[in-house]
Amino acid sequence: MKKDVSLDISLLEPHVTKDKLKDLQTKVSSIHKSLWNKTCKGNGFLGWLNLPTEAEKTFGDVKEVAEEIRHDADYLISIGIGGSYLGARATIDFLSDPFQKQNVLFLGHHISSDYAASLFSFLKDKDVYVNVISKSGGTTEPAVAFRLIRQELAKKYSDSELQKRIIATTDAKKGILHDFAEKEKYRRFVIPDDVGGRFSVLTPVGLLPIAAAGCDLQELLKGAKSMQDLCEKNDNVLDNPALTYATARYLLYQQGKNVEVLSAFEPFFQYVGEWWKQLFGESEGKENKGIYPTAANMTTDLHSLGQYLQEGERMLFETFVRLGQTYAEISIPHIEKDPDKLNFVAGQTLSDVNENAYLGTKYAHCDGGLPNMTINAPARNAFSLGQLYYFFEFAVAVSGLLMDVNPFNQPGVEAYKKNMSALLGKPGFEEQKAKLDKKIKGE
Amino acid sequence: MKKDVSLDISLLEPHVTKDKLKDLQTKVSSIHKSLWNKTCKGNGFLGWLNLPTEAEKTFGDVKEVAEEIRHDADYLISIGIGGSYLGARATIDFLSDPFQKQNVLFLGHHISSDYAASLFSFLKDKDVYVNVISKSGGTTEPAVAFRLIRQELAKKYSDSELQKRIIATTDAKKGILHDFAEKEKYRRFVIPDDVGGRFSVLTPVGLLPIAAAGCDLQELLKGAKSMQDLCEKNDNVLDNPALTYATARYLLYQQGKNVEVLSAFEPFFQYVGEWWKQLFGESEGKENKGIYPTAANMTTDLHSLGQYLQEGERMLFETFVRLGQTYAEISIPHIEKDPDKLNFVAGQTLSDVNENAYLGTKYAHCDGGLPNMTINAPARNAFSLGQLYYFFEFAVAVSGLLMDVNPFNQPGVEAYKKNMSALLGKPGFEEQKAKLDKKIKGE
Repeated sequence: MKKDVSLDISLLEPHVTKDKLKDLQTKVSSIHKSLWNKTCKGNGFLGWLNLPTEAEKTFGDVKEVAEEIRHDADYLISIGIGGSYLGARATIDFLSDPFQKQNVLFLGHHISSDYAASLFSFLKDKDVYVNVISKSGGTTEPAVAFRLIRQELAKKYSDSELQKRIIATTDAKKGILHDFAEKEKYRRFVIPDDVGGRFSVLTPVGLLPIAAAGCDLQELLKGAKSMQDLCEKNDNVLDNPALTYATARYLLYQQGKNVEVLSAFEPFFQYVGEWWKQLFGESEGKENKGIYPTAANMTTDLHSLGQYLQEGERMLFETFVRLGQTYAEISIPHIEKDPDKLNFVAGQTLSDVNENAYLGTKYAHCDGGLPNMTINAPARNAFSLGQLYYFFEFAVAVSGLLMDVNPFNQPGVEAYKKNMSALLGKPGFEEQKAKLDKKIKGE
Repeated sequence: MKKDVSLDISLLEPHVTKDKLKDLQTKVSSIHKSLWNKTCKGNGFLGWLNLPTEAEKTFGDVKEVAEEIRHDADYLISIGIGGSYLGARATIDFLSDPFQKQNVLFLGHHISSDYAASLFSFLKDKDVYVNVISKSGGTTEPAVAFRLIRQELAKKYSDSELQKRIIATTDAKKGILHDFAEKEKYRRFVIPDDVGGRFSVLTPVGLLPIAAAGCDLQELLKGAKSMQDLCEKNDNVLDNPALTYATARYLLYQQGKNVEVLSAFEPFFQYVGEWWKQLFGESEGKENKGIYPTAANMTTDLHSLGQYLQEGERMLFETFVRLGQTYAEISIPHIEKDPDKLNFVAGQTLSDVNENAYLGTKYAHCDGGLPNMTINAPARNAFSLGQLYYFFEFAVAVSGLLMDVNPFNQPGVEAYKKNMSALLGKPGFEEQKAKLDKKIKGE
């Protein structure tokens, strides 16, 4: 369990070799330095670098409120989108039992009317807390969801009950949600100014719902802290796995590999994959650059995407995530006369079969011309996940800087938001609305 | 509700224009003809063309067994992978209430030990039926899952109870599962010889679990049948939406757009997206050709992939799926003094907001150089979904034939299977095992 996250790049050859990586050492060292002395592009958003240490400061308050929620409520409704949704969702899904009651539910991560109606109907006879998460309070999806759920809850709770049951995670000093929460005297947690949404899982944004779900915050942070230490001390492109990963990706990208497939062999990883897609897509995908991030859930997707991965267009590379240890051991029994022809695996565990599926896949894909590498994570636990989070965050920072983009902004997200605001009739967007109305009519 | 699935390609210009589509009419007509007179590549696997009509033959038996399951069991465990999993999963997810008990659970769609252990523990005090779905019975994932769950169920059911509770969907005449089911006298449903896994949702493979979940088979088949009629009669590349979709994709692919993003604006569509990924990836992805299929769930993913879609590398094109009608209408209330600054949308419904998010997005992405088209489906109901299934199936057949591959085989899926079998010590794979062991040792 004490082993760290590590990276195996042997099946990237000849696209990526140790020599090719070493050739980039000077560049990587300088990027490493520019991150830690905060002189890189986007250096106003480097708060995530020290979050594993910083988090301890708010840790106590988060745990206390989370305990209250676990004690007093059937469900916590976590309202947020993007980074204010995926970190919590990923962590809870990764660590929880899929067939036991899940006490954290999500809203405001899309605008589905049927989903909201189903949720409200389900919650009618349940005791509920709400955590609304939005830096500005101006993002439409969570803002609308929050207005709707307040209306629902007001049907059964008094104002003072509501005051206790709504917790806002927002900007420290300003913004619509901040001001509203102040006025209504909701309890508040703060999103640090220097941490972007996709890097915020280890702030109260992620930590409150994660703790409310009963996950082990301490181990999560310990894992992240251990990777922080490694990433801070070590600027060697071959010894620091986050640097190796970032640089290998960069080399692949330079060779025309512009789609990455993150393939994990446990279904619990699915939403970590979604979190990773935001982290990498939003950090790199600008100025018409970037590797397009896609994820696969194995072995499920070997029976859907497998054909393409094996024999389709070769602009892809693959990154496996392999978990070293699972909770449950299930041994495959021997059966007399072997009616289903499976006795050749009798005595092996399900995990053995899964491990051989992984091994079989990586060599098959390599033979098919799909370069691949493997991120080894020790186990399906909070410590490993904390390591993985920091590993990916540090890697994407380096990777974005290697591509010479600012990995910490997301200017392109505004485009649809502006159009939507205009179409919805938001004051100040009149001109854009007129333009769009014309386009729509013209169809 | 009576409106059909349709396609809007106006925002594909200048990449795709009506003239460019018409230039391919002769080729498309000849492909259309080769499908219906069964002379195309892979013509041994065209049974799906007539499934909406054929399905009526087995329909009665499927419904009867499904009713028994709904009456006698708390849960149906559906065991299958790839096409024997995704069609049922997609249909049930699309049509069900996400916050109500879901009585169909899945197993054998991966090899996760923790997942299986959680499921077995959950099922201890539940009444269970099993539907094991595998043409040959030789695919490792479902075969192992089936052996394990038989062992679990034998702890609480007698042999005759088990005989009643296990239903096998398999080959008509041969194979490991067929022979085993015959011997044990399990009830059997047949996977037609001329229907590949990814085209099998309208055979008992999909229909039994779908009916057991309480979805409306009749409407699903009616929808598919209406699209079958359209696709059979109409070979005009501009009038038949499945032909338009296939040909537009082909034109985009020829212009270097080798990644498609299927973006739906309802979360219930998520697994239809997974089904679609298998259908397209497995049909096209061979001979180093094919468009890599990826999916996005909007507006969730506008806050994760949105940045990349707006400003990243331009090898992408996007296909929106827009549902015309939802079940629930939720109106956004007006609030005195507008504390959350949302009164500008007061009086609009959540569906209005969602529709404007879609409109805002498609114009924003178009402005960002991301060509996009829209599949309009009438509603979130079984009829629309049936139409969509047939629409996509017919489109991928045409699309694969335009790319000059056999859309109905999947030779590449064998590569990992063979490696895995070898590594697991399956008799007959000794030579391959020796080779792989050497590679693994060499690391």
